[in-house]
Formats: sequence, C-alpha cells, structure tokens
Amino acid sequence: MKQTQLFMPTLREVPADAEVKSHQLLLKAGYIRPVSAGAFAYLPLAQRVLNKVEAIVREEMAAINANEMLVPEILPAELWQKSGRYATYGQDLYKFKNRQDRDFILGPTHEETFTELIGNDIKSYKKLPLVVYQIQQKFRDEGRPRFGLLRTREFIMKDAYSFTADYEGLDAIFDQMEGAYRNIFDRVGLSYRAIVGDAGAMGGSDSKEFSAPAAAGEDIIAYSDGSDYAANLEMAKDFYERVDRSGEAQAELEKIDTPNAKTIEELSELLNRPAEELVKTILVSGPEGELAAVVTTGDFEVNLVKVQNFLGLPEVELADEALVQEKLGASFGSLGPVGLPEDVKLLVDERAADLVNFAAGANEDGKHYLNINWNRDVDLADDQVADFRTAKEGDLAVDGKGKLVFTRGIEIGHIFKLGTRYSDALGAKVLDQNGRSIDMIMGCYGIGISRLLAAVTEQKADDKGLVWPAAIAPYEVHIVPVNMKDDAQAALAADLEKVVADAGFESLVDDRKERAGVKFADSELIGLPVRLTVGKKASEGIVEVTLRQSGESFDMPASEIAAHLNEWLAK
Amino acid sequence: MKQTQLFMPTLREVPADAEVKSHQLLLKAGYIRPVSAGAFAYLPLAQRVLNKVEAIVREEMAAINANEMLVPEILPAELWQKSGRYATYGQDLYKFKNRQDRDFILGPTHEETFTELIGNDIKSYKKLPLVVYQIQQKFRDEGRPRFGLLRTREFIMKDAYSFTADYEGLDAIFDQMEGAYRNIFDRVGLSYRAIVGDAGAMGGSDSKEFSAPAAAGEDIIAYSDGSDYAANLEMAKDFYERVDRSGEAQAELEKIDTPNAKTIEELSELLNRPAEELVKTILVSGPEGELAAVVTTGDFEVNLVKVQNFLGLPEVELADEALVQEKLGASFGSLGPVGLPEDVKLLVDERAADLVNFAAGANEDGKHYLNINWNRDVDLADDQVADFRTAKEGDLAVDGKGKLVFTRGIEIGHIFKLGTRYSDALGAKVLDQNGRSIDMIMGCYGIGISRLLAAVTEQKADDKGLVWPAAIAPYEVHIVPVNMKDDAQAALAADLEKVVADAGFESLVDDRKERAGVKFADSELIGLPVRLTVGKKASEGIVEVTLRQSGESFDMPASEIAAHLNEWLAK
Repeated sequence: MKQTQLFMPTLREVPADAEVKSHQLLLKAGYIRPVSAGAFAYLPLAQRVLNKVEAIVREEMAAINANEMLVPEILPAELWQKSGRYATYGQDLYKFKNRQDRDFILGPTHEETFTELIGNDIKSYKKLPLVVYQIQQKFRDEGRPRFGLLRTREFIMKDAYSFTADYEGLDAIFDQMEGAYRNIFDRVGLSYRAIVGDAGAMGGSDSKEFSAPAAAGEDIIAYSDGSDYAANLEMAKDFYERVDRSGEAQAELEKIDTPNAKTIEELSELLNRPAEELVKTILVSGPEGELAAVVTTGDFEVNLVKVQNFLGLPEVELADEALVQEKLGASFGSLGPVGLPEDVKLLVDERAADLVNFAAGANEDGKHYLNINWNRDVDLADDQVADFRTAKEGDLAVDGKGKLVFTRGIEIGHIFKLGTRYSDALGAKVLDQNGRSIDMIMGCYGIGISRLLAAVTEQKADDKGLVWPAAIAPYEVHIVPVNMKDDAQAALAADLEKVVADAGFESLVDDRKERAGVKFADSELIGLPVRLTVGKKASEGIVEVTLRQSGESFDMPASEIAAHLNEWLAK
Repeated sequence: MKQTQLFMPTLREVPADAEVKSHQLLLKAGYIRPVSAGAFAYLPLAQRVLNKVEAIVREEMAAINANEMLVPEILPAELWQKSGRYATYGQDLYKFKNRQDRDFILGPTHEETFTELIGNDIKSYKKLPLVVYQIQQKFRDEGRPRFGLLRTREFIMKDAYSFTADYEGLDAIFDQMEGAYRNIFDRVGLSYRAIVGDAGAMGGSDSKEFSAPAAAGEDIIAYSDGSDYAANLEMAKDFYERVDRSGEAQAELEKIDTPNAKTIEELSELLNRPAEELVKTILVSGPEGELAAVVTTGDFEVNLVKVQNFLGLPEVELADEALVQEKLGASFGSLGPVGLPEDVKLLVDERAADLVNFAAGANEDGKHYLNINWNRDVDLADDQVADFRTAKEGDLAVDGKGKLVFTRGIEIGHIFKLGTRYSDALGAKVLDQNGRSIDMIMGCYGIGISRLLAAVTEQKADDKGLVWPAAIAPYEVHIVPVNMKDDAQAALAADLEKVVADAGFESLVDDRKERAGVKFADSELIGLPVRLTVGKKASEGIVEVTLRQSGESFDMPASEIAAHLNEWLAK
C-alpha cells in the first residue's frame, strides 16, 4: 500500500482531553477519531488491526467448534422483559421506540437473543452441546465514557454462548474456552492474568476474568505474591480461619454514652481496643427496597459486590442518612446489630462473627453497646455469615500461600458459567436422555475486541509511539524511501515491496514527498514491526533495517532481507 | 466441520408468512431466523456466506486502493442537522435520546459521518483523491419490512465514499468503482444490469444502479430490447423528439359543460379525440408546502420521482382532494393549466407542451376548456418543460434503438456522484492547486451485503432448495455417509474430509444418525455445490458425486476425487 493513498492523519500534538497513553497515541498516530463522546471511528490502520484480531479470534473459535453467527443489534424490549433485565439493567441500556411506538433496545450483550434462538430450534439433548458466537458492535450508554477505547458507548465484542444438557458439558466447554482465550491473548501479544471475576452481574455461578495489567486499567486486581491466586478486588479473598470462641466468658451487656465516638478510630481510642475487636455496621438497600445491615470488623470495609451476590440482587447501594434514620433511628456513627427492625436482614462478616464481648453502635445517637455477644444479644444463624469484606493489600491471600499485591488491570475477557438463569426465564428446554424436559445449561464468554487495541497499546507503546506485535500489526513492514525523487531509492523501494509481498507479508510504502525527519517520526508513531529505510546507500543496494520494538538498527544488503523477514516477524 | 456440531436447524415446512422464495428457503434451510419484524439472525451457514461475500468485497475494494474503516452506528443528531437530513429523511430514520437527553440516530448511511471525518483531517488537494469504505450494520425503520432479507430494518452494507479535488477525479473513481462492482457481482454469481438510477434521494447529480433481475424484486427495470439502455422505471425515458407547431392555426378558446367526463377515457369519448391529444393535470405538494401542477398528455402517467428531482425536493406527494379544492377550486376530474393561482408552479411534460388546440379541465367542476394553446391561454417558459412522464412498456427507448421491456429487479448496488452536496453543508474544504479553498467533490457507493444472499437465492435456488455458487458457498463440499455406523463408510468419509482440505476446500460432514432420505433432502436444501455420497460401495472405494446446480450424479473412485475438485468448484 502506498502511503499517499492511505488515510493516516498523524498529529503533531496530542489532544488535550486524552488522559491515558492509548487514547493519546491512537489519536496522534491517526488510528482513531471521536465521532461523539465514547463513540469512535476506526481509521484504516486501526481497522486493519481489528481485522487481524478478529481473524485470530475466528481461528481459535473454529478450533473449539464454535459456530459463528450474527444476531440483530436492535432487540425488541419483550426479549429483555422475559429475563427481567429490561427493568434491572440500569441506565446503561439504550432504549428507544420504533415508528409504531414499540419498545426496543440496542443490545449490550445477547444472552436473551441466543437463548431464544437456540431454544426455539433445539429440542433434544442429542443436538447438544452447541457453542455459538458472533463479532459485533455492542452498545452501553455510559454515564461518563472515557480513556479512549477503554470505556466507550459503542464497542466491538466477540460474545459466545454455550448450551449443554448437563454441568459436566458446561465445565468442559468453559475449560476449552479458557484455552482458546489464552491462545488469543498470547497471539495478540498481551500479558494477562486469569482471575476470579464477579459472576453476579450476569446472573451466573462462576466466572473467570482475563485482565491485562496496565496503569490505565480501571480495575484493581489482587494477586498473591506466593501463588497463582488472582482476583478482581471486588472478589478477592484474604486468608481467615473461623475460630470457636463459645467457651469464652461473656461479660454483661452495657450501654454507654459515646457522644464523640462517631468513627472506628474515635471508638478505638475511647475504649482502648483495636479496630479488629470493634465492629462497624452499614445499611444497604436493593432495587425493590430490600434492606440489610452488614457488620464487619472495624479494620475492614464492607464489600458491596460480595453483599449483592450473596443476596442474589442485581445491585445494592448504601442507604442514605434519611433511610438510616427512618429504619434504625440513629445516624451513621451509631449503628449496630442489636435491636434491628424485622424488615432489615442481618449479614455478618465471618471475622466479626467470631468476636466475643465486642462493641457496636446502639442504634441510638451518641450511644454504644459494650460486651455484645452473638446469639445472646443478637440472633445469628450460620447462613447469615460469610465473607463480606474487601481484602486489603498485604493481607495473606485466601490460599495462605502469599501476600495480596494490588495492581491495575484492563478487563479484556470474561467467561461465565451461567447455569439456567436465562434458559429458565425464556423457557429454553430440551428433553434429556430420560425424556424429561430440562432447562438448557448455559455459559457466556466475551472478549472486548476494540478494547484489545487499547490494552496492547497500554502495554507495548513507548515514548516514540505505538509498537505492534507482528501478528496484529496493520502492515508488517514499513518501507521508507528517504527521497522519492531519487530514482535509485524509488526503484529499490519498489523492489522491496515485491520482496515483502513474495514472503507473504504486507508493506506500507511511505511515498510521500516529506522531509526524512517527518517520515521517521511518523514511522515510529504508527509502530509497524520492521522499518526498511532506503536512503543514500540505495545505489549500493544497502537498506537500513530498524526493529520497532527493540529499537535495533543495522544496514543490510537488500538481497538478504527476504531471508530474515520470518525471524523479525515471528508470530 | 461435523454437522452434529453445527447449528443448522432445517425445517420440514415453510413458515406461512414467508412470501418470496428467498425468504422461504433461507428459513427452511436454517440460514436465517427472525428476531423481530425485519431484523434477522444469520445462523452459521448464512454467516459463512456473509464472510465469503465480505472477503470478495474487501479484495475488490483493495484492488482500487479503497481504505477500509469503521465509523459508529450511533450518530449525534447534530451531524445530520448540519446536512439538513435530520428533518427531511423521514420516518425511516431511527431517532433516540441518550441518558443525558441528547438526540442521536442509528445510521442508515454515512455521508455526513465520513464528510466530517475526512473534512477535519484533510486540508489540501495533495492528500486527494481518497476512497474509504466500511462494512457494517445499517438501520432503517421500515414501515412494512417484508420479503425476508430484501426489505429489513437492520441490514449489512458496504458503503464507500470518495473525496476528490475535481470532477475528473470523481469520474475516474466512479468508473473504477463500477468495475469493482461488476467484479463483485460476477464473482458472487449474480446476473445483473447496470441501470440509470435515481440520484435525487442522495442529493447527487448522477448515479448508476445495479439490479439483479428476479420475480421477487420490488423495483421495475425498463430496458431496451435493441440496445444497452436500462433504467429504473422511475427514471426510464421513452423516445420523443420535440416538434415546432407554432405555425398551426389556433382555434378559439371555448369552455364547455362536461358533467360526465371525469376521466381521460370519458373525455376522449365525449370529444372524440385520442388521449394523446388531451392533457391531465395533477397537483403535487412538497414537504414545506411547495405546490406544483403537473401536466402530461392523457396517455401517460405523471412520474413523481422525475417531478421531485426536477424541483430539487427531498420528496413530493399527490395533493389530496381537500387541498386540490382549496387551491384550484375544483375536484380531481376537472383540473387544468388555465388560471392557476400564483403559488402553484406549472410544470408541463414535453409531449403535452407540443400540443395545440388541446382540451383540459377548467378548474371548475363539470367544465373543460377546448382549444387551449400555450402562451396564448397559459404562460409557459422553456424551463417549465421536461420529461415528467412514466415510460410505458413497448414504447421506443430514449436512444431510439429498441422497445422498452419491463422486468422486476432487486437493487443490489448503487453508485452516486454526489458533488458538493455534503462537503458544502459540513464545511469539508481543501486548498486547491491555486491555494483557493474549495468544497471537496464526493461520491458514494453502496452494496447491500445481506441482501445479496436473498438475490443469489432468488436467481439460483430451485424447487429442492438453495444452490450456492462455489465462491460464496458456506462449505464447498458436502460429504454424506449414508450410514455412520458402517465402519467402511465412516472411514471413507474421514478420508474424503482430508482430501477436500488438502485441495484447499472446506467440507461439511453429515455425521448425523439420520435416515438417508433426511440426509439427502437436507443436503439439497442447504445447497452446497458438490455432494460426495458415501454408501454401500464405500468398501470398494466408490463415491457418488452429485453436482447441486446441474443435478448431475455419477460414481467415481475416491482416489480420483481430488483431481476433479477444482473443475467442479471453479470460481
């Protein structure tokens, strides 16, 4: 391809509103342009990367016999009303009416669509397992789109769905899918961690998230420095073994005035007891007005995602001051588990559940109880106790084999065991081997295709510009004749173009009449793996080879280039 | 690919609401399923055809140095307000608001998007010409989606846009694009005509439409049986040479009572004059209340598309009875050109403009004038006269070289010379060679990718099912072992799978435990070009070869198959 025929508008300056490296460089190198907030045009170089990423995804999906399909992006509201998500998905769901005043949405994901399609046509376990996928634009009405391709309103995803008659089949496909995902991320050149993800949002039971460590990542990953354990911070677990303290002496319950102890720190000082021997209590509410008081030890924060998943709710939020006053009769600093009203469910973190003679707010402003004991002062059943706390960096990881280290990551893929959440709601049933009608067992599996461009850029780019791995580079070779008016240079550039094509690679030829400095800067900015500079030594048949990633640069006779391309461009 | 792993739900019966052949067969053969009215899921076999069609389109676009890109499908309303189309595009435009209450649309086409993108980054004629394209879902809120993939609300298009600094550049790209389109349609196996299209809708000056003749087509194509001339009926022209009759005697204008002559036929009988010597007059209105009376000879119908394009309006419609009464003071049967109010523009078809002493309604119920003469009884300037009539089958074609024949066709592609319609509206300017700021000259070029599947089916399918040309068949070879439990058959089928793969083709293996009759019926239904049936002669190494298109069937030793695949699957 000749650069004069390519739409590749590089910029000298980075637009001021681009905050992260990938956003800045993809704009500067002429790969993307915004059309509206969070909706980007992919210019030709980016489109070539997308095409290559998609080809890799298709190959790896074919290798596990996944069927490529394509479903509509406009979906009738009824489909999402059947699953209940039309009401619960939240403000991110684009809703609109057609000319006949019927309700539609723009699909952010397609569990319902595939469940209905497969459910309509597959009626027997004999036609299962089945794995289908598509590559398609998805839509999410983000409140605050930002960070270029990392958080957008329109993005490209590969979304796959599996249908099996049993959980063993689901497990097998889940494992195959994990393997395919590892292959895909390896091939596109990303370093990543497979971590414990939050399956709750999709209504699933188990999930694994693939996260690419990068400073621009919006997620915090907690991983163990002594084992393979890694999880999204919202799911991360520290090590804790329950203890039986039922034999310990229980002191008498006592209510005291604590007008100046509104925080754990103040209470700790007042009582001269460490935070881990005190508890904090918060009130959370669900979308239908569900209420729960959550109790943790004073040294931990409540983890709302764990609470939400435990309760099986689509979302929970902290109750505001007014609701707390109405329900518990006290302000934030004086809440506690003793004397909760009947419609407030009590949830207790396991660390707090093991305390004896502990202090907590009395649900009365300026008052605390001392010497509270579970099942004497407050009823507490085993099914109200779980891990409701947010793990802290430095704590022992749940497997006990290392300390938790926090790092930022970009979510690049997520695989879920869904079970029957959607097949049940949409009536997608098959007859099993015994002739019984059962809900199909489902899994769903996503990769953010357009987000991968940003993730690779965050991990690979340097201060000169983008750096593409050969497997997904827009072109593998950049041929840069320093002076197109020099006949020897133009001729050698044309020869090299043929050499590259004959070796099975694609080249971009900078045939512009620009100064050498501009050409070199643009070449580094757009980041093709190999640059062949054709300059003054063209008449001797000598080419300068520059490898973008290492920065290595050396002269070589043009006749020897072909023999080295495979080595420089190993995929 | 093993058929047991493929989602390919064939049906025994055709759904009752499928009216045309392609809709019926694509449903029956398990290629498509509706998700809502006019929005289809493409099942795996259809997706493979789409991928092959798209690959052909990409190759032909690359051959003319068109740059592939991808722009958002959700577009801010402001973009279309700049061009004016937000107001004028009509009810087919999907409009919605985002969570911040801003207006958006779903793109049905992207002239504005590309004009703004290119206009923002290209500032000099030196960076032109430039051709960009994308392959993407488009959205049109059809009032009555129908005929399967032929008229849908969501569809896949290849849309290309060219930007040049002069009209010579536009003409050159238009011609290259026509060549690319011919290659694409030839390669996908369609027969088609390149016809004169209606450029008005896109605001352009010149266009060529590609139409695939098929009974299910919604357009009528008029072509000459004696030359290459072909046009959409709305644009078709019959042969007519203006005559100068200014020397003929003009009889006295006379108003007569015609209470029973409300149609041309009744008037013709009453006056004993042929319809071509009478005129009919209709009133049309534009979107902003523009009014025109259009006069044709009695033997032709008024062509609203020609009127609309002549007036440069986005649309015109026939005035209703009430408006006609209000403006002209008479009912439909008594209208005429004499004494029109000032705000009604008079347009006269060239055949009617050449009449002398002709009759027309008097704009008074039950009255007609006899012996009307232009520029004696009604002012008529040359710029009010043009071809405003709908051509009739059997008339001499405009080139005088044959008679017009009408046939139905499916619009599969359309290329337009747009000129500066959009660059002017959106301020997309470059500096020319003389340093002057000029509007970029544009063209736009579309192919209905998903519609091609229906068009090929309409042209190729037979009473047994689909028939795919090798170039776009989901798989080229269908290997059908009659009995999978027979070891010899299973082994030979596996051998053949390898033979086909080694020859560079893809096969589908019917490994289902179904009766032979079901397998053969499904095989004919899905329409792969070559079937290799492995039956009782498997133990002798004999395979039955069936060519889907010709129906030809013959035995052949398995060892000879490889040598014939290229011949059977010539692309």
